[in-house]
Amino acid sequence: MSSTQLPELHNLPDVPHIGDLRCGPLGTIADVHGVSVGHCTLDEGALQTGVTVIRPHAGDPFLDKVPAAAAVINGFGKSVGLVQVDELGTLETPIALTNTFSVPAVAQAQIRAGISANPRIGREWSTVNPLVFECNDGYLNDIQALAINEQHFNEAYDAASTSVASGSVGAGRGMSCFDLKGGIGNASRVARIGEREYTVGALVLANFGRLPMLIVDGTPLGRILAERAATAKAESAGKPADLAKPEQGSIIMIVATDAPLDARQLKRLSLRAAAGLARTGSVYGHGSGDIALAFSTAYTVPHMAEFIAVAPLLADQHMDPLFRACADSVEQAILDALWSAESVTGRDGHRRLSLRESVPDLAHLLKKKS
Amino acid sequence: MSSTQLPELHNLPDVPHIGDLRCGPLGTIADVHGVSVGHCTLDEGALQTGVTVIRPHAGDPFLDKVPAAAAVINGFGKSVGLVQVDELGTLETPIALTNTFSVPAVAQAQIRAGISANPRIGREWSTVNPLVFECNDGYLNDIQALAINEQHFNEAYDAASTSVASGSVGAGRGMSCFDLKGGIGNASRVARIGEREYTVGALVLANFGRLPMLIVDGTPLGRILAERAATAKAESAGKPADLAKPEQGSIIMIVATDAPLDARQLKRLSLRAAAGLARTGSVYGHGSGDIALAFSTAYTVPHMAEFIAVAPLLADQHMDPLFRACADSVEQAILDALWSAESVTGRDGHRRLSLRESVPDLAHLLKKKS
Amino acid sequence: MSSTQLPELHNLPDVPHIGDLRCGPLGTIADVHGVSVGHCTLDEGALQTGVTVIRPHAGDPFLDKVPAAAAVINGFGKSVGLVQVDELGTLETPIALTNTFSVPAVAQAQIRAGISANPRIGREWSTVNPLVFECNDGYLNDIQALAINEQHFNEAYDAASTSVASGSVGAGRGMSCFDLKGGIGNASRVARIGEREYTVGALVLANFGRLPMLIVDGTPLGRILAERAATAKAESAGKPADLAKPEQGSIIMIVATDAPLDARQLKRLSLRAAAGLARTGSVYGHGSGDIALAFSTAYTVPHMAEFIAVAPLLADQHMDPLFRACADSVEQAILDALWSAESVTGRDGHRRLSLRESVPDLAHLLKKKS
Amino acid sequence: MSSTQLPELHNLPDVPHIGDLRCGPLGTIADVHGVSVGHCTLDEGALQTGVTVIRPHAGDPFLDKVPAAAAVINGFGKSVGLVQVDELGTLETPIALTNTFSVPAVAQAQIRAGISANPRIGREWSTVNPLVFECNDGYLNDIQALAINEQHFNEAYDAASTSVASGSVGAGRGMSCFDLKGGIGNASRVARIGEREYTVGALVLANFGRLPMLIVDGTPLGRILAERAATAKAESAGKPADLAKPEQGSIIMIVATDAPLDARQLKRLSLRAAAGLARTGSVYGHGSGDIALAFSTAYTVPHMAEFIAVAPLLADQHMDPLFRACADSVEQAILDALWSAESVTGRDGHRRLSLRESVPDLAHLLKKKS
Repeated sequence: MSSTQLPELHNLPDVPHIGDLRCGPLGTIADVHGVSVGHCTLDEGALQTGVTVIRPHAGDPFLDKVPAAAAVINGFGKSVGLVQVDELGTLETPIALTNTFSVPAVAQAQIRAGISANPRIGREWSTVNPLVFECNDGYLNDIQALAINEQHFNEAYDAASTSVASGSVGAGRGMSCFDLKGGIGNASRVARIGEREYTVGALVLANFGRLPMLIVDGTPLGRILAERAATAKAESAGKPADLAKPEQGSIIMIVATDAPLDARQLKRLSLRAAAGLARTGSVYGHGSGDIALAFSTAYTVPHMAEFIAVAPLLADQHMDPLFRACADSVEQAILDALWSAESVTGRDGHRRLSLRESVPDLAHLLKKKS
Repeated sequence: MSSTQLPELHNLPDVPHIGDLRCGPLGTIADVHGVSVGHCTLDEGALQTGVTVIRPHAGDPFLDKVPAAAAVINGFGKSVGLVQVDELGTLETPIALTNTFSVPAVAQAQIRAGISANPRIGREWSTVNPLVFECNDGYLNDIQALAINEQHFNEAYDAASTSVASGSVGAGRGMSCFDLKGGIGNASRVARIGEREYTVGALVLANFGRLPMLIVDGTPLGRILAERAATAKAESAGKPADLAKPEQGSIIMIVATDAPLDARQLKRLSLRAAAGLARTGSVYGHGSGDIALAFSTAYTVPHMAEFIAVAPLLADQHMDPLFRACADSVEQAILDALWSAESVTGRDGHRRLSLRESVPDLAHLLKKKS
Repeated sequence: MSSTQLPELHNLPDVPHIGDLRCGPLGTIADVHGVSVGHCTLDEGALQTGVTVIRPHAGDPFLDKVPAAAAVINGFGKSVGLVQVDELGTLETPIALTNTFSVPAVAQAQIRAGISANPRIGREWSTVNPLVFECNDGYLNDIQALAINEQHFNEAYDAASTSVASGSVGAGRGMSCFDLKGGIGNASRVARIGEREYTVGALVLANFGRLPMLIVDGTPLGRILAERAATAKAESAGKPADLAKPEQGSIIMIVATDAPLDARQLKRLSLRAAAGLARTGSVYGHGSGDIALAFSTAYTVPHMAEFIAVAPLLADQHMDPLFRACADSVEQAILDALWSAESVTGRDGHRRLSLRESVPDLAHLLKKKS
Repeated sequence: MSSTQLPELHNLPDVPHIGDLRCGPLGTIADVHGVSVGHCTLDEGALQTGVTVIRPHAGDPFLDKVPAAAAVINGFGKSVGLVQVDELGTLETPIALTNTFSVPAVAQAQIRAGISANPRIGREWSTVNPLVFECNDGYLNDIQALAINEQHFNEAYDAASTSVASGSVGAGRGMSCFDLKGGIGNASRVARIGEREYTVGALVLANFGRLPMLIVDGTPLGRILAERAATAKAESAGKPADLAKPEQGSIIMIVATDAPLDARQLKRLSLRAAAGLARTGSVYGHGSGDIALAFSTAYTVPHMAEFIAVAPLLADQHMDPLFRACADSVEQAILDALWSAESVTGRDGHRRLSLRESVPDLAHLLKKKS
């Protein structure tokens, strides 16, 4: 187990830039000031999984809650904490990502961390709402082993920094995307509204899609690759990909912004992740629990206060650049996951090839477009 | 005023076929057996507007209601009837489309038609729930004139047939899409699930988007056209398109299927319209009230009955081909609207050019891709 | 037709005071500073109906929108405008109440009034979202006559004042409640939070319930009255009340407050109307479209602005007194409707007796409790 | 730790019968054929907590899922599993109840039980969605100890029978209600619709309310008791109850029925729990996570099937007797919790008196009413 940091994998020269907005300096969710991310990765034979933690700010999110809202695009998923986020419009723990069956272990770790930081929780104070998202990494990872424990969450939390790795790390270790190696992806965009600039950052846990669906910046790459793969497998007498088999994946899309928005507006923003997701080829398949959560760092909601001093909020009619930044960031972050992930072999010899290993001539294929 | 039928405009040779699923025989929402559509078009100087009516079956939908559900992707809209659809999972009038300020007139026409067909409505029986969707055609149409009246609804209703026109007809008369002439679009797809085939049909009222956003089957056509337009306008000393101006449009996406689904499943299906919409370049802009409604013709819910004999429902895990058919149909229907619409001049000399008139070399531009 | 003002009917000596919180000086929704109400009443033989208009403030609500949210407790209803309220968290027209089939006429009147006040609506500006709620007064009123027109809305609007009538007035003219005469009801409560006091006011359009359900401040009055009525009818050889017949009514509950809340919080507040409603005996019957809308007058959202300066918001953990004030106000307002309404004879000789006429010894029955 | 069964505490002679519908033979949720319940109770000094398991039928709910839906009345809660229930309309594990911080342990136990019964879960099959509801028992229980483990869930599951205990048992061990001892409550009602009878059963985990709110069948008992308590404490120089302190409780309301309903209808049914809850005095306080879930035993949804043969569904317009049965059952079940619970002393000497111990003359107080 290691808290991997692979910043050198970002911004591969050949990943297309989605849309017209410019990228932030890091090209990760950490371009939103105050946001940091840590991974804990398990790479031990059949155990190919991990935990990723996103801290919305450097302080204690229970004491200084963050306005947040989620869009459940397809609710076939097991994430926890959303009922309260929907009611109160805030998050009060770091955001944790892991595999489906490790949600309880990570939720329990969040509870213990909350109690440890604030011993009045569950005594004089109300309880704490752990926020944990998940995807099913059961193809590569022995998910039935329930290998993640509290310590892994703590390691990911302690590793949080603004140097954010993408690819086969943290919760993304065992994830598959478009029948290729998926995992963690990052991106950011800067949106200009009037005289001001706001940053939108996205971190995705990409674990969805069948190969023929994949679209890269408008190029139907999946169709090309699937045809090539079918041909190759036929030649090597292997059995062709079972394209009829439905998805069992999912995608979690975390969107951060420094724009001053309240929970209602963040719900609107989070839904625009669905647009970026669709442009990569997804139709939100039945088996794919697709959930987006957006939060703002522009102000916090103190745990103890009679009044909440909300920052002057951006008027809704000025949100379009943020909507575009959200969709573009999510699309870009999915590509980043594919570009960054390394091939992984896991349980029962299952192996997912990275895009780069699977398609050595990727640059050539994409160049044909322009 | 005329109930225009322009079936010869469908299936232009150069409109790209979206996705892998095959089209139904008509290529319209009427490929779903029993569904018919009628338009009433106002083309009188500053009045460029109309009504479109979709009948889910040939009978009386109040007596034999149709399972239905809607996905409100962006609720900045004034459609009526959705509160009850959400609660009861059925529609009980034809679906009507018109301009924003004519919703009351059309809703009242629906009420009168309901009473006329069933005089017990509002007496011994409960009232009837008019279902009317809208977009804002105020750029071309003098929407403040409130020109639509009951008679226009009746004409559209009476004109309903399986020969369905697309383009600048009915409610689509005054609509704009990507700064081009928009309006009514149609498409259908046939999805195979196990041994059976189901049809999904879409009819859209396309009135959204700014030109630079337009994507045609992956080709960023809008960006190309916008650049060309900017250049041309600069040369002719005209003022450039105000790209900062936000959308005031919307899109209504009506999805029909003969697959046996209940209201919960139809809500899932309707949301997949968002994927097709996104692939044309939309990020569900603030000002665009984007709403999808899906209904099934596989069974009806009788007004008077103690029990509802629901058809054996397709299991959710087999819905993916329908999801794909929905997204592809909606994307295709938006293209159909652009391909079918003719240029229109309306209020204050405002004019929207058709895609074909605006881009004579469209075939050339799109061919560059493959 | 007349814009009736009957303030002397309020605060009957024998109406029980619900809960521990004190009432505001007027005992109506107008205790929330800035709120005014006007009625237009039709009392012409078979036409027993009307329009009620609630103005959230003295200005133009399109230019200065009001934070608002609704709770759809039972969506079997035909109110319009809620899709946008849910998305944007504001209302931008006065709130209008009328009968089910007159919603279109009143919505159209709202549109015309909006255009008249702001001619840029539907031109340079977006369209306006008419907010109209309804109940079915078809038992007393010839609802099929569609008797309400634009002028009635305008009269109600022009009559708006802080002297608010309850009972068989305005939209309440033809309404029935618990098989008695229902209609408009008002109430208010003052809630102390910390050092401050906030006012919550409710106006209901009460048109729900069968007699045996009625509970008055804990006393099962409906059961007593129903038994008495059954006996009386049996003695006079009349046929007994058909208790098996389901409700076709509804209740609309408008809640105003001067507490600084945003739309998310107002949604929470509005749902507490369901508690007050339940305490009168309702179980939100299938046929009863039960909808609550809450708005705050503490700040406005200007139509044209880059930023919205939200007042410091009351923290959620301090909302309980408001929740109680909302539930108590709604319960009190329903009683106010019953206490205030006079008997009405309408279509086909249908007649609803007022509570006072139906139960001359009401004071005696209620006094038995304490 | 013991799997307590105290059926002799049910149907105390003096608990009022709510409403007109008759009770089923057992007066518990197990009156719905096939439903069984088991408790595991921890009674060890500062550990006063437990687990309650509701099995919807005797089989494997993953293989034969049960139609279900939830109403989140107040989402300030940490229950897990509802996102998927909302999307797919089924539950696929037993329903488990426990304290807030033990949700992860019980969810993990549900996952292990699912894998054990169906080893293909998380391999060829999708993962399993644990359904766990919670209330905060931190006043009596050392909730920070996270004392519940997998074994407790298994014991509760193994103890499931149709002999269902109420009171200070299972998850109800440490719960408080109206400042009295709360916990598990049960009730059932039989509703006649046409020629048929259907049973509705409720099991609540009652942990909400402050004493002054308590209403027993219309009698404001809480106000009487609170006044008495204030007087008594004043006389004994103790400090008066801090009535300003907000609730930190919650209530979970599980509603079962044998009526043939689908998920949409079950959502409607579940919301009627809010009416029963309100009639006991609740206004769904800010701190009280109030959630209702309803399921039907009339048919199941097989895990593997192309089509779902839904039973002929009861038409919505015939649901009113079920709505009444739901509200009455929930109100009755809350009273059952108060009547059944025994006094408990827990962490730091905190003690909650049972209603019977707190109010020896309860029968006298309630008799005053009639």
